Amino acid sequence: MDRSILLDRDAAAPLYQQIADELRAAMRAGRLAEGERLPATRDLAQDLGVNRVTVQLAYRHLQDEGWIRSHVGQGSFVAERPSGSPPVPPIRAEAARSEAFLQPPLVGSICSAPVERLFQLARSSAAMPELGADGIDFSGRVPDERLFDVAEFQRAMDRVLRERGAELLQYGPPAGDENLRAWIAARLRGRGLAARAEDILLVSGAQQGLSLIAQTLAASGDTVATESPTYHQALDIFAGLGLEVATVATDAGGMRIDDAAEVLRTASPRLLYTMPEFQNPTGITQSHATRAALVKLAAAANVPLVEDDFEHELRFRGTALPPLAAFPGARHVIHLGTFSKGLFPGVRVGWIYTEPALLARMAQLKRTLDLSGGALIQAALFEFVRGDAYERHLEVLRSSLARKHEAAQTALHKHLGSRAHWTAPDGGYALWIELDAAVDAVQLQRYAAREGVVYTPGQLFFDTPPQKTCLRLSLSRVDLERIEPGVQRLARAIDAACKLRAGPVLGSTWPLL
Amino acid sequence: MDRSILLDRDAAAPLYQQIADELRAAMRAGRLAEGERLPATRDLAQDLGVNRVTVQLAYRHLQDEGWIRSHVGQGSFVAERPSGSPPVPPIRAEAARSEAFLQPPLVGSICSAPVERLFQLARSSAAMPELGADGIDFSGRVPDERLFDVAEFQRAMDRVLRERGAELLQYGPPAGDENLRAWIAARLRGRGLAARAEDILLVSGAQQGLSLIAQTLAASGDTVATESPTYHQALDIFAGLGLEVATVATDAGGMRIDDAAEVLRTASPRLLYTMPEFQNPTGITQSHATRAALVKLAAAANVPLVEDDFEHELRFRGTALPPLAAFPGARHVIHLGTFSKGLFPGVRVGWIYTEPALLARMAQLKRTLDLSGGALIQAALFEFVRGDAYERHLEVLRSSLARKHEAAQTALHKHLGSRAHWTAPDGGYALWIELDAAVDAVQLQRYAAREGVVYTPGQLFFDTPPQKTCLRLSLSRVDLERIEPGVQRLARAIDAACKLRAGPVLGSTWPLL
Repeated sequence: MDRSILLDRDAAAPLYQQIADELRAAMRAGRLAEGERLPATRDLAQDLGVNRVTVQLAYRHLQDEGWIRSHVGQGSFVAERPSGSPPVPPIRAEAARSEAFLQPPLVGSICSAPVERLFQLARSSAAMPELGADGIDFSGRVPDERLFDVAEFQRAMDRVLRERGAELLQYGPPAGDENLRAWIAARLRGRGLAARAEDILLVSGAQQGLSLIAQTLAASGDTVATESPTYHQALDIFAGLGLEVATVATDAGGMRIDDAAEVLRTASPRLLYTMPEFQNPTGITQSHATRAALVKLAAAANVPLVEDDFEHELRFRGTALPPLAAFPGARHVIHLGTFSKGLFPGVRVGWIYTEPALLARMAQLKRTLDLSGGALIQAALFEFVRGDAYERHLEVLRSSLARKHEAAQTALHKHLGSRAHWTAPDGGYALWIELDAAVDAVQLQRYAAREGVVYTPGQLFFDTPPQKTCLRLSLSRVDLERIEPGVQRLARAIDAACKLRAGPVLGSTWPLL
Repeated sequence: MDRSILLDRDAAAPLYQQIADELRAAMRAGRLAEGERLPATRDLAQDLGVNRVTVQLAYRHLQDEGWIRSHVGQGSFVAERPSGSPPVPPIRAEAARSEAFLQPPLVGSICSAPVERLFQLARSSAAMPELGADGIDFSGRVPDERLFDVAEFQRAMDRVLRERGAELLQYGPPAGDENLRAWIAARLRGRGLAARAEDILLVSGAQQGLSLIAQTLAASGDTVATESPTYHQALDIFAGLGLEVATVATDAGGMRIDDAAEVLRTASPRLLYTMPEFQNPTGITQSHATRAALVKLAAAANVPLVEDDFEHELRFRGTALPPLAAFPGARHVIHLGTFSKGLFPGVRVGWIYTEPALLARMAQLKRTLDLSGGALIQAALFEFVRGDAYERHLEVLRSSLARKHEAAQTALHKHLGSRAHWTAPDGGYALWIELDAAVDAVQLQRYAAREGVVYTPGQLFFDTPPQKTCLRLSLSRVDLERIEPGVQRLARAIDAACKLRAGPVLGSTWPLL
């Protein structure tokens, strides 16, 4: 293989893209033949004088585009082109190079978070092909699909298709499946909310829910308030809508009420966004006192309080506290729920519960944006949750998470005890670590990848760069017996990073920095 | 029953809402007992001195809220309340009366088209309960679900759940199922487009597609151009985003190029929206010459041309013309497709095809708005369309539509020959009628409902009230042998409306006017 790849370190295009472009050109020209093995990322990185992750990102890019295929343990190869198909021009590179024929305005809704996207790439295990089968992946706060009761869902789907197939493949009700709305309302009533089916709007996951809420309550230039750190996709939504973010500090009990009061007073936010249960990313549960105070405070300020209740079913110890929407005087609370954490993300079903006038506005907006959700998938989901498979699944999840969190606490004490602080959540998938060492959590990823472990760097969850080095570990998809080795690898990576901290700054080839 | 309902004709609340409020109060107070029969709409309307449709709307409202249930041929009854459930407070009425605790800004995306919503109510057959089983419904340009091959879809769903269930119930790729994107791209290549899988973004129906396009290209206060008349939901989207609409006149060949040139020159629109095949509502097919000229014109003006290609598979005669995106120099064309007309609306799958840089922006926006579509439903859809069931279904649809359109043409000649003009589409579900008589197409609905026929009034498709009396007839869900009787009923309704035109204006109680 011709390795005379020319890199321009002053070019606007990141190095990984330049590498991908060069390799693509070589493949298109036949200089790299179908089936030919590409150099190991480690070797190519050394040859080019770049960081290995840069080469890994380039390979990942080419893999996404179908130019190469990778096999764990074997390396990467030039992919066979389907016969008869036209040669595939480069997508991203072409897009980046072409003089855009349009200069469309970047309207409010456009999310401008390239860093976030690159983070996503970098932290997904696929971006670390060499991590391989032995890698331990603490990133991604998503359910473990190995626990899904697919057979039961298949029975539910079969049944609704058999009984109401034609109707369910037709346009459905804009607010969503009636039965499912009634079921959700009944569950919420069980938690102290005065919810009726007609108070529930089904949405395409909590992401659409929060996006509808934000679009309904705020306009570009307005401010919204969140706890800090907070869910990175929420920050994406707010940034995408052109909203300013005012952050409220948190302590062990959740949002700090004094700080929240100050923010409401000084920033006049259009909404206050909070996650009372197993907060993302910290895993903290808001205390009863904080909840009561928060509801009262927001009511007095006449500010809608958005309660993102994404993982409440995953409590494995302690007693559940009432959701904010169940507190006295909570008419200004907008309650947001989802099936994506406790059940199946792939059904794309979440819901909004709030007072009728506001809900009607959001329903109308949803109808304008995408008419309705999918009637069939919602009906199948109802058929699934009405049985006992859902509760069985939650039981399995909770007991699994209890053991995993316990293992994580033990391992953290053992391997990071003297060098970090971390949370001990009562439920949910993730926990939060603050390192004493002043290493950069993004740069640390490289050392972690070398050790064969992946996590989510804390920067993602802050609107402005944090003062501390923070990591989020999601235990969901890591097997119980791999948690301790994973934490051990992480400790080794931190050691390595701390030792090299005085060395040359490697960040220049890292597209994230 | 206590019929002393007090109506305030000067109140802001429409009469149907006042009636609904009164009846609800009576039911809540027990003055109307569970199971009690409500007066016939005709009787109550006479008692109250309002139009019958007003009462029908009130009943429909109460039915939606669960207060009453209606049985065809028997009338409406006070519904049983589920035991143990709390008394249900009125939703819409309470919302209307409550002093809104919030005064959220009506942000760009909020659609402010109450007229449209009421139209929807009014024209849906459920809003005309007395239409009954004998009613003939020409409204709603939606597929006939009786033709759906549910069994085949069930096999497809079974298979993907069996083989990849867990993976498909997990979060899916933001741009949508790879296989389905590749399949769509191949179909588009068959029509002359240079599409690759990666050029396709799957969206939640064409509605979300158009909404993403509009949000990406235009901001509140900008102007967009459309042909007139045009798809009413497109007008909704544009209005909801705060966009001005500049309209281009159409003739038998589609958009009038001279008018389009004038609009592009004077209104500086951010996009030009058009439906070249079986335009909604007119059913007109854009000529080859118009297409070529339009592509050239928009390119010269550097204005993105949005091609909504929603029913192209439903051509039952003549030769298919290339889509706009296949014309030379069509790099600025944004091609929008959907499975909602040719297949199943309930899967909520449409797609956007355009040049990579712009597509990437829309993909990013979609990711911010709802993360991704449902992986499972997309995979099942691919499994369905890769077989021959889709083509079989289209064959059935096309031959059915050919016969229905022929029957409609014959019936229109027979019953309206001397009093109207209409289109004779080469494909698609609908045709368009312009009456010579100066009756209002919305008011005409009342006469039509009496005759047992429903259509879509033309006003819906205009940005400003049209000069002509226009109706859209959708033949999709009307059985072949009912088309002639339906047109005959329509003719009788027109006769009745024309006779009464000099009489008192009944519109005052009609909430649409």
